[in-house]
Formats: sequence, C-alpha cells, structure tokens
Amino acid sequence: MDKVIALCKRRGFVYPSSEIYGGLANTWDFGPMGTLLKNNVRDLWWKKFVQDRDDMVGIDASIFLNPKVWEASGHVTSFTDILIDCKNCKFRTRADHLIEDNVPNIKVEGLPLEKLAEIIKENNIKCPKCDKNQWTDVRKFNLLFESSVGIVESNKAKVYLRGEIAQGIFINFKNVLDTTRVKIPFGIAQIGKAFRNEITLGQFVHRTLEFDLMEFEYFIHPKNWEKIFKDWQDEMWNWAKELGLNEKNLRWREHEEFERSHYSKKTMDIEYQYPFGWKEMFGIAYRTDFDLSNHSKHSRKDLSYTDPVTNEKYIPHVVEPTFGLSRTVGIILFDAYTEEGERVILKLSPKLAPFKAAVFPLVSNKQDLVNKARKIYENLKIKYSVAWDDRGNIGKRYAYQDEIGTPLCITIDYDSLEDNTVTLRDRDTTKQDRVKVEDIEKSIDKMLV
Amino acid sequence: MDKVIALCKRRGFVYPSSEIYGGLANTWDFGPMGTLLKNNVRDLWWKKFVQDRDDMVGIDASIFLNPKVWEASGHVTSFTDILIDCKNCKFRTRADHLIEDNVPNIKVEGLPLEKLAEIIKENNIKCPKCDKNQWTDVRKFNLLFESSVGIVESNKAKVYLRGEIAQGIFINFKNVLDTTRVKIPFGIAQIGKAFRNEITLGQFVHRTLEFDLMEFEYFIHPKNWEKIFKDWQDEMWNWAKELGLNEKNLRWREHEEFERSHYSKKTMDIEYQYPFGWKEMFGIAYRTDFDLSNHSKHSRKDLSYTDPVTNEKYIPHVVEPTFGLSRTVGIILFDAYTEEGERVILKLSPKLAPFKAAVFPLVSNKQDLVNKARKIYENLKIKYSVAWDDRGNIGKRYAYQDEIGTPLCITIDYDSLEDNTVTLRDRDTTKQDRVKVEDIEKSIDKMLV
Repeated sequence: MDKVIALCKRRGFVYPSSEIYGGLANTWDFGPMGTLLKNNVRDLWWKKFVQDRDDMVGIDASIFLNPKVWEASGHVTSFTDILIDCKNCKFRTRADHLIEDNVPNIKVEGLPLEKLAEIIKENNIKCPKCDKNQWTDVRKFNLLFESSVGIVESNKAKVYLRGEIAQGIFINFKNVLDTTRVKIPFGIAQIGKAFRNEITLGQFVHRTLEFDLMEFEYFIHPKNWEKIFKDWQDEMWNWAKELGLNEKNLRWREHEEFERSHYSKKTMDIEYQYPFGWKEMFGIAYRTDFDLSNHSKHSRKDLSYTDPVTNEKYIPHVVEPTFGLSRTVGIILFDAYTEEGERVILKLSPKLAPFKAAVFPLVSNKQDLVNKARKIYENLKIKYSVAWDDRGNIGKRYAYQDEIGTPLCITIDYDSLEDNTVTLRDRDTTKQDRVKVEDIEKSIDKMLV
Repeated sequence: MDKVIALCKRRGFVYPSSEIYGGLANTWDFGPMGTLLKNNVRDLWWKKFVQDRDDMVGIDASIFLNPKVWEASGHVTSFTDILIDCKNCKFRTRADHLIEDNVPNIKVEGLPLEKLAEIIKENNIKCPKCDKNQWTDVRKFNLLFESSVGIVESNKAKVYLRGEIAQGIFINFKNVLDTTRVKIPFGIAQIGKAFRNEITLGQFVHRTLEFDLMEFEYFIHPKNWEKIFKDWQDEMWNWAKELGLNEKNLRWREHEEFERSHYSKKTMDIEYQYPFGWKEMFGIAYRTDFDLSNHSKHSRKDLSYTDPVTNEKYIPHVVEPTFGLSRTVGIILFDAYTEEGERVILKLSPKLAPFKAAVFPLVSNKQDLVNKARKIYENLKIKYSVAWDDRGNIGKRYAYQDEIGTPLCITIDYDSLEDNTVTLRDRDTTKQDRVKVEDIEKSIDKMLV
C-alpha cells in the first residue's frame, strides 16, 4: 500500500491535500496524471451508461438543496455513523470498524448501539492507540456537513452539503418527466461531488470527506424489480471488467437486513480486495418508492407516473447502481501496480491510461530526427492524449512511462529518417515492433477497442 | 430573458433547483439538455487549453482545504461584498449594485465604504422595494461559506468551501513542479466548483451560490508578463468566438485600480451583454507573485523556481485566465436564442449542441422504414450524441429539435428504402438535402470542424 501511495505522489497521480500546510485529514488532490485517469473513467462511464443507451438521461443538480429535501429523505435523522471514544487517550473511532478490525469474520453494520457495546465488552477490545479498555458509550453522529446561506447571523438559513447525489435526481424526477421523452423503465444519471463528515483514516482515497460519485436512479414498475436488479448487477460486473480490474480481487456481497441503509430493501456491493481488506467498490440498492413517496408527501407534489399504454398510475420504484469515481481511481491504481524485477509498471487498461502513447526522438541533439519525431507527435496529439519526451536515455524514458502506465512508446531513430518506420514498444511485454509511420494510429486504435 | 428561462425549463436545459420545495435562492440545476451542453463546453475547453498544449497540465484539488490556505490567500479578510439594508422594509442589497442600477455610467467596485454611502446620499437613491430613503450604514460581509469538520462540537474545526479554485493550484505548485516535467512558462489548469455566499438575485445562472469554474494559473518570469497577458487575451477572445458567441455582444473592459481584487495588478474582463446589462463572462488577472509568496511565507515552504538554463531562482509570477462554466452555459443559451416568425431556434454551434443530429423514420407504423432508420441511428450513436424521434408529425419533430439546437435532422422515408438516401434538414436554413446513407457521417464531420 505504501508503495502505491508513494508512486501516486511521485508520478503526480494523487497528492495529500493542503500538504504544504500539514494537510487536512481525509482529503486528497488528484495531480496531472490522476486527473487524466479520473476524467477517462468518468467519460467511459458516461458513454457506456448514458450516451450509448436510449433509456438514460443525465442531469447536474446543485450541491446545496433546500434543507427540506434531507428531512424528507430521512438523512437528517438516519444518516449516521456510530462512534466510540477512549476515555484514557481521547481516541475517537467508528464502533463498527473497531469491532471488525478485532473480531474475525464479523459484520456489524446496522446493529443496535447496545449490541455493539456488548460485543466490544465481550471481546475485551482495547484501544488501538493506548491499549486501554476504557470506552465511552456508543453514540450516533450525523454525517451531513452543515453550512449557512445568507449574510447576517440573525438571517442565516442552515443548509447541508449533499451526502449523496441521488436526492438531486429524485427532486427533479417530475421536471425530467415533463420536459423529456422518457418512458418507464428509464434512468436519470448524474456525476458529482458528495460530502460526508468521516472520521475513518488511513484508507487513501477510499474514504474521504468529499468524493465524486457516478450513479443513476433507474425508475421502474415494481413488479419487475428483481429481474432489473439482476440485469444491472451484470452490467456493473461487466463495467468492472472493462476497467481492466482483476476478477480475483472482486466479489459480490449482499447486505444483511440489519446493515442496509434506511431506504433500501435489498443492497448488493461489488467489493474490492484492498491491502486493508475487502471494501465496497460499487453498490446497487433497491430503493423501492421510498424517496419519491416521501418527497411527494413532504412537498405535496404529485410524483406519480401514468403508463401511456395501460393508463396505470403509480409511484415508480427505483433500482440504484452507484459507482464511486474517486474511489474507483484508487482501486484502479492499486490493481494496476505491478513489480517485475527492477521494473515498476502500472498495467492500466489502454482506455484509461493518461497517455495512450509517448513519442521519443532517439537523441535530442539531432535536429532532423527531433523534427520528424515532433511531426509524428503533433499529428497524434490531434486525436489522442500523448506524451513527448526527449530527456535522458531511452531506458529511463521507458521506466518513466511504465510508471505512469503509458501502453505504447514510439521511438524515432536514424532508420526512421531512411525508411519512415518507428519502433513501437509495448509496456507489458516490452516487445518492440517496427512499424510504418502511417500505421501508428492503427496500432493505437487496436489497443483502444 | 423570461422567454429564454422558459425555454430552458421547457426543454430540460436549466431547472430552478429544489423546485418542488419552493426552491433555494440562487441555485439552479442543469437538466438533460443543459448537462450535455455544459459537458461539451467543459470538454472543448479542456481539449483546447490542456490536451492540445505542451505547456499545460491539469489537476483536480479538493473543495475543503486547510483553513490556513484562506488566511494566507487574503480571502478571510478581503473576500467581501459590501451590503446595505433598508431600515423600513429590511430589504438587503449590495451597495455597489444599488448605485450602478441608479446612477448611469458609474463604476464603484472597490471604493471605500464612506464613499459609497456618500454616493447613495448625494443621489438620493431610494429602496427599490419600498421606495423609502432610510438606509443603514454600508457594511462588509465575507463571501466564504463555512462548515466544520469533525464530529463532536468541542472538537470541530472550521473549514471554508473554496471561494475560488485557484488556491488548490497554488498550494500544489511545488508538487506539480517536483513530479512532472514542466518548465516555465507553464500552466496548471483545473475545472471545478466554487462557492460564494451571494445575495444578488435574478441573474439566472450568472450569479449563483455554487458554480463551476474552468481556469488556469500560468506561471511566468515577471519580465514577460505584459506580452503573456496580451497573448492570453487573444486566446480568450478566440475561444469566445469558437463558442459561436456573437461578437457584438462581447467587449473587453479593464478594471480600474480601485475595483481590482486584492491580489491583482491588472484585470481585464470579457463582458457579455445580457438582457440585464454588461456583465463579466471571462476574466484575466495578473496576480503577480502574490499567492505563491504568501503561501511560501505562511507555510514556510520554498515555492521558488530555478531556471534550468540561467540558474536564476525566483518566485514565479502568475497570469490567470478564468472562465465561468455554469455562467458560460447561460450566456450561450441567451446568445443562441432566436425567434424567426413562429419558429424558436437555439442556434448553438454544432460542437456544443446536445445532439449533433436527430434521426426520424417518416412514419412510425411501417416496420421496414423504422428498421432502416433505427440502423442508421444505432450506427451514428457509436460516434456521436444523436437523438431518435418517431412521434407526431415531422413538422413538430423539427420544431422540437430546433428548440434544443440540433443542427441536423435526418429523415428516412419511402425513397430511402429504394435508393438508400435520406433527407438532411439544416436547422438554421431549413434547407433540405438528399444524401446517401454512407455520406451522413461526412456531413456531420464537416459541421464539427
């Protein structure tokens, strides 16, 4: 894990945020390579789940919503973490995580507070910082960040930073229905930031104060929910494979009744095997009509749907596949990190790689060679994200590109001036091929299929 | 203006946020068409200013930064609006806007508080709500939103929601320098949300509580700043033209000394002529070494740069072009809105249009015709964002596509089955051409150059 984080820093994928000021717990910034990678994941997701489909539209709702939204959705009362403090050293931690870290094969999310306290006591779990066993009671804390809109104290109105992006979709359900041509079943997709007042530390970009989500609410007639749920599970698994993730690091896990969120009747996660254990990567929940019914009740607006064929009128049910974008970038980096002897390679899927290719003139002091390389580079740059490197020896340039996951290195040498061919070097096999300049694009396109 | 806002709602470009709960002042949500348009603007900007250039890298920093960042940057003390209240009806407004709305050709941003009070008095400016002249003193209010990180009251730490995205770039300057191969002059670009506790109402997406910015800090040697500033001005103007904006609605305006932000030595805006007046669209500021020097001082980290050729060591200066993304989407919609007789047309640049083309089977009840249209649609969809419509008569479908700005409508009719041709109808001229199916892509590509 430390090696991956060090690579992320060294090559500009992920930096600790506010680092020059000593940081800010649970925040990370994406550097130049990380931003390109993250944008590629975002764009692939959008193309697959929105653009390529006929049953999906996208929206982009606000982070600040009317606070009544979060009352209706149940987040003000139920969006909580369960915490416990060490009386001796004041260390504060999540009670569920404390138990899971100390008792093998236990799942405790959703258990009542007293039960958690009991388990901690029964198992004589000690504080991981001071090794004492002097815990406070177990208490609930809300995860929503608060802020206030308005300028003068007496006049300020409390607002929440959205704790999930789904609510922006639910409250626009009627707008989308009225202003587009969607028919059930259809989905409304969104990509954007959510915020949670997390205290869990040390999980890199897996658990952070702010994070990008990609998700959609798929609106259905309730009679079909089981099949639709299953179909989306398959799509989610396929997408994980398209990202190039190793299937042995992935598994499905169903949430047990007591651990499900307040709105869900069935929840399944695709978990990823991190160095620190199996954790949720993507999730799918059957939210029933919980959200639309509650918003309908609280806002007194009719949020039902009338089937254009049968004329049946009903509040649609919802299946919700959720994909953490920031989290997925971290998982992709963990999964792609490879050491082979001295070499460190990021075996990223070419579709995701920040650069599809790097262009090298063999030497940097021979002008016609540099000119030829430059021309090839400029041409490729119109269509692809490509890198230029004319510094140091070729071996070092390969090593650098390996570490940022560039699948193809193109070297222009003296022969290139004679016969208009270049060397293509493959990141994973290190095999070198000689190809004509006009066939370079074909090689890149083949890799991106 | 009301017509544009109505179209935005009707066709799914922009909805009032939290509408079913009576809204939340100064927030708007982008609907399906608005999201596609916004993503297109974002992607074009990124391609032009980051991907296509060799001197630019992108990052994606956090919204929450260590609060010391905002102390060092001067925002905690200087990022303020100047407000005034009506004692009679309690109406609160920005003093500068109040004056500008009542005194022709005056610019007051940056004037001292007493001077503003004087102008209001001298001109006998009355409350626009109750028509009385009973104003409070003029007072400063900070625009940064506050929140707290941490769970328990006693232990909470104040954080700010970023009021500009530039600081995330400055505090990562050293990280980028150390982990990429940039050499001055170079830029660090970013796209993301900023937040300001605004009270100005009624300017649609021009002035909102949260908004997406696209900007870069361009790091330079100070001796070159004037030329570089000028060059970036040209690039910004070209970009406005690439967006298809009408040049007669654009103008440059230089900020006078008293109205410049606390960090800037020279500021120029490209203003757009809204129905409610000329307002800032893009801005460019010469921020000098203000930010890097202050962060260096406050963090005690060396943020200087050593020239690899001359070995000169210095704190780089910065020229900052800023582009409001949410705001630009609004401007594009205002600018594209056109009425021609009965027709309402959004004359969007084809590059920006949510859909590049719409595919219609002439009638929806003839299966071989629908099949052929469907095949054409599916093929185009692999490469382009395209719409399908088989409802109502062709005239109505044209009118719908005109209102969402689709530049090309493709109709498959009985002749298509015989000779494999289709009708291409141009949005702006309404001219219809008969082309071969295999030439459709060529027509679309031509339009997108």
